[in-house]
Amino acid sequence: MTPERLAAADAALLDARIDELWAGYVDVLSDLVRIPSTAPHERAAQELLAARARAAGMDAELWDTDPQGLAAHPGFATADHSRQVRPNLTAVLPGTGGGRSVAVSGHVDVVPVEPLAHWTRNPWGGTVDGDRLYGRGALDMKGGLVAGLLAIHAVASSGLPRRGDLVFESVIEEESTGNGTLAARERGPHVDAAVIPEITGEHVQIANPGVLWFEVTVTGTPAYVGQAGASVNAIDVAAELIAHLRSLPARFNAAFRHPAYDGIDEPLTLNTGTIRGGDWPSNVPLECVVGFRLAFPLDWPVQRARDEVLTCVDEFAAAQRRPGAHPPRVRWHGFQAPGFAIDPGEPIVALLRAEAEGVSGAPAPVSPMLGTADARYFAARGIPAVYYGPGGGGMHAPDEWVDLASVRRVARTLARTVAAWVGRA
Amino acid sequence: MTPERLAAADAALLDARIDELWAGYVDVLSDLVRIPSTAPHERAAQELLAARARAAGMDAELWDTDPQGLAAHPGFATADHSRQVRPNLTAVLPGTGGGRSVAVSGHVDVVPVEPLAHWTRNPWGGTVDGDRLYGRGALDMKGGLVAGLLAIHAVASSGLPRRGDLVFESVIEEESTGNGTLAARERGPHVDAAVIPEITGEHVQIANPGVLWFEVTVTGTPAYVGQAGASVNAIDVAAELIAHLRSLPARFNAAFRHPAYDGIDEPLTLNTGTIRGGDWPSNVPLECVVGFRLAFPLDWPVQRARDEVLTCVDEFAAAQRRPGAHPPRVRWHGFQAPGFAIDPGEPIVALLRAEAEGVSGAPAPVSPMLGTADARYFAARGIPAVYYGPGGGGMHAPDEWVDLASVRRVARTLARTVAAWVGRA
Repeated sequence: MTPERLAAADAALLDARIDELWAGYVDVLSDLVRIPSTAPHERAAQELLAARARAAGMDAELWDTDPQGLAAHPGFATADHSRQVRPNLTAVLPGTGGGRSVAVSGHVDVVPVEPLAHWTRNPWGGTVDGDRLYGRGALDMKGGLVAGLLAIHAVASSGLPRRGDLVFESVIEEESTGNGTLAARERGPHVDAAVIPEITGEHVQIANPGVLWFEVTVTGTPAYVGQAGASVNAIDVAAELIAHLRSLPARFNAAFRHPAYDGIDEPLTLNTGTIRGGDWPSNVPLECVVGFRLAFPLDWPVQRARDEVLTCVDEFAAAQRRPGAHPPRVRWHGFQAPGFAIDPGEPIVALLRAEAEGVSGAPAPVSPMLGTADARYFAARGIPAVYYGPGGGGMHAPDEWVDLASVRRVARTLARTVAAWVGRA
Repeated sequence: MTPERLAAADAALLDARIDELWAGYVDVLSDLVRIPSTAPHERAAQELLAARARAAGMDAELWDTDPQGLAAHPGFATADHSRQVRPNLTAVLPGTGGGRSVAVSGHVDVVPVEPLAHWTRNPWGGTVDGDRLYGRGALDMKGGLVAGLLAIHAVASSGLPRRGDLVFESVIEEESTGNGTLAARERGPHVDAAVIPEITGEHVQIANPGVLWFEVTVTGTPAYVGQAGASVNAIDVAAELIAHLRSLPARFNAAFRHPAYDGIDEPLTLNTGTIRGGDWPSNVPLECVVGFRLAFPLDWPVQRARDEVLTCVDEFAAAQRRPGAHPPRVRWHGFQAPGFAIDPGEPIVALLRAEAEGVSGAPAPVSPMLGTADARYFAARGIPAVYYGPGGGGMHAPDEWVDLASVRRVARTLARTVAAWVGRA
């Protein structure tokens, strides 16, 4: 049963609190963006958020994740930094009891800024220019995270009596594996719903595809560079393999039907993300390693996507027929993430849309996400979870920015949503 | 006029000296291979050779090259390390006067050993196994260099009176530019002929193609990885460019006719040597840099080869038609080396072949080289130069080794050749 929208007077009270707190939270967001929190360097950003959560009246705890202990979990994935212990933040604003609990949960890690030459803004500047706040992570997703904290601060300081608990959660390592949210779900607290303020442009996003990261290592065979046809050049073979693998997303899109993705021609994409090969122009390169990110249908198990990749690589190797050449080796490294979808009729979805209408004048559009994020770990525990956050530009790209007006609207919508969800005491 | 072959008694005397000195020179070669003399780290190897040249009775001088002063020279090229000052070695064994001088000149720098996993031998071990001495540079070209020093040591210690000067020269940075030999030719001493004991498998090699190194930087355009068609992926474009550039050697080979290369189907090759692109699997890569090595007809000026490369890259960029995408940028980095050929009727060629016949029972075959080396700098000064050195395996590849029996034969041939060339006093 969908909770009723917050009473107009209560909503006005929360709006007023957000207005009073707003300037301070723009500073918090600037400060947070100035901390380069690429994994595994999330600690300083988590400490800042813990301090702010305490200032917002919450019981905040930084607690170390246990990658060794989690490594056997089927939801655990391994990226370069995954075995390093870093802290998650869990902050709780307890209710008086008897209500439904809800978490606002986001990640504090950001993707790398390189190549720096493509930025016109300081990627770690956190500078405000009109309604834009610039910097790596401003949009993905420190803007949403700060909107969530501001929303809870507004509720906490509004004097509204609450029944259910409010949880604010900031996790590590969402951008490569999701291990931070996995650790948080294993530890708890359990919640009755979650809103993840990812970059949704104020849409309510109810689905995301599965995402695989994999590395392919191509091995060459040596000969002197001047001897035509005597060697196998690992970079040349990798270049052909890259072209061959481009058949995968077309195949996947043809196999993918989900109502949330109606009207999107190519929801599933392959990205050739990294390549390193060779050491000297006049030596035949013997190793070339290519890193890919591949989205797959949200109703597939990870293994099916892996099998498709392996088949595609095997086809390529068979067509090569290079005597003495080792077939390319595939390594599953980083995301091994199944997809996610929530029934758009779920109460948390309906409530969010309704509260967004109260803030913006129209119900939030419902749409799907094109990448992965952490909702799958909530879904795996039966917790309804949904994405709802601000808009901006430059996601996973140079000159990233978040729209501050959007952050403020999202804070209002989130404040009303969580207050309505936990119930007036 | 070709000098007469060395008298049989003198040749026997030199052979005997080489036999006496041989075991010590195998140790010298092992010691030299144990020094990782990749550019710009040639100094320790040069110091070892200087000490050995003095022990051989030569006036040896280590002298610093002057890259700043040479940079404006048309024969100067720029690789990563080219602006770092390092020493060349020039050692002279003066004659009594009135004879022709000759240099045995080689390079002490070696190509990198990576990827190490492909070696079954220690690349810096210098270990002897039967007739093979293993390690990076054993073949290219420390084996030849040591054969040359041994040859001169044998002559110096034989008591044979000599008219012309004998010069032993060990230079830096042959593997990326040739700046070491350029510096040596600028400084002198002038010589009347030169033998470069490169890897020729005991052939007399009389020609080499031109060689260009160039880097192509492909620039992408950003978008979120999940948005199909919204971005230009620099790695994907680079992969297509690599395939496109493969048309170059076919075009070059079709245009190339030189008698030294008769019977070789594809003397000119392109090697995709290095590639680096992207920083994160889930970010669209915005930069991809590919390093190439391209051989071109020996009678072309460098500019013609460059123009062909630029045209090929331009064709590619035009066919791409990617709005907003920057065209690939070409950077000339490393070898900008025109080709080389010497008339096979030159006296130094004829003498070498004849002396090799005396050592091995058959005249040394005459053949061309498939890569570049430093003879062009001698030719530019009108000095007849030729390649003649030992054989082995693993050149510019793992498990490099030199055939010690070949080194010993080469030392004998070189000793007889230089002794005959400078003339008995």
